[in-house]
Amino acid sequence: MASGAGPEIERLMALLSKLPGLGPRSARRAALALLKKREQLLIPLTAAMQDAAERVTSCHICGALSTRDPCATCADPTRDAAMICVVEEDSALWAMERVGAFSGRYHVLGGLLSALDGVRPEDLRLSGLMQRVSSGGVEELVMALPATVEGQTTAHYIADRVKPLAPEVTITHLARGVPVGGELDWLDDGTIAHAFKSRR
Amino acid sequence: MASGAGPEIERLMALLSKLPGLGPRSARRAALALLKKREQLLIPLTAAMQDAAERVTSCHICGALSTRDPCATCADPTRDAAMICVVEEDSALWAMERVGAFSGRYHVLGGLLSALDGVRPEDLRLSGLMQRVSSGGVEELVMALPATVEGQTTAHYIADRVKPLAPEVTITHLARGVPVGGELDWLDDGTIAHAFKSRR
Ligand SMILES: [Zn+2]
Ligand SMILES: [Zn+2]
Repeated sequence: MASGAGPEIERLMALLSKLPGLGPRSARRAALALLKKREQLLIPLTAAMQDAAERVTSCHICGALSTRDPCATCADPTRDAAMICVVEEDSALWAMERVGAFSGRYHVLGGLLSALDGVRPEDLRLSGLMQRVSSGGVEELVMALPATVEGQTTAHYIADRVKPLAPEVTITHLARGVPVGGELDWLDDGTIAHAFKSRR
Repeated sequence: MASGAGPEIERLMALLSKLPGLGPRSARRAALALLKKREQLLIPLTAAMQDAAERVTSCHICGALSTRDPCATCADPTRDAAMICVVEEDSALWAMERVGAFSGRYHVLGGLLSALDGVRPEDLRLSGLMQRVSSGGVEELVMALPATVEGQTTAHYIADRVKPLAPEVTITHLARGVPVGGELDWLDDGTIAHAFKSRR
């Protein structure tokens, strides 16, 4: 990306272009905005990123990204420990929390089983989930996984492992046909609330 | 943007959403990518931004963003000091440099005159340009300004001030009809090269 901007600015542009949604052109625009808005944007964003790099970790219970371990959800005694909502990534957890329709706990798998991409059960946060389920007190496992092959394969795999381990646990799924494409995060809030209320 | 991600991650998302091209949704995706790719993305990008915040300044001659002052272009004795290409922002300079069709110097105005947005001559890097032009040695001023009302108003204003100050300076314009919409940065490289070669 030779641009005449000098190696430091070019490095900034190259790294920005690795963010999802930013190509080379929008990375150049982002770099220019950062450099022109030094006090209002570059310095505060750098500080926020440094803070995140130093303090954000994964909750040892649910796997959610958080500056606290256990995370706020796992540590909150008012949240229903009998319900665990299983999501692929934190983005789905964030989407559910924005809606506010769910008052239980979460489990962030960190991915989905995929023969194509070589993602195996041991690559996901599955043993932790089995431990939570088998330790008792869980009544419902809400699968908020995408309606893709990978999402459904993962949901079936989890159900098959939970049944013998904790037959008393009910497994429900977010109403189908809604999260097509997989990105729960990309749905509007009303749709998620509906999908959650009509889970089966 | 209440998301259940905790205040630190929410602050990160809020600041990312201020970057051009990133809305709230893509800012959430960017934040997640940063947090998941801590070593490969978050830490190097934070370092690049910190470096930029500490070291990038504006060249006192041409106004370009650079870690050196004078910038590489102004300091390069092989670049033709008789030609100055006048651009709105660094992005246009970067686009010209990517093409490599221009071997002179630059002058970055830092904006365009706009009655609507209240941008007056004293808000732009104009006195520096007049100083460069009147100090002698400049033969051509290439206006690489957008074909918008603001771009053309600015070009005319500069021409009107340069004429009495340095009547020997030829003022040319990048071939019209090409940078409609204003963003020289958004043109493909072949188009810029053509626009430059066919300047009038
Ligand atoms: Zn947790
Ligand atoms: Zn310079």
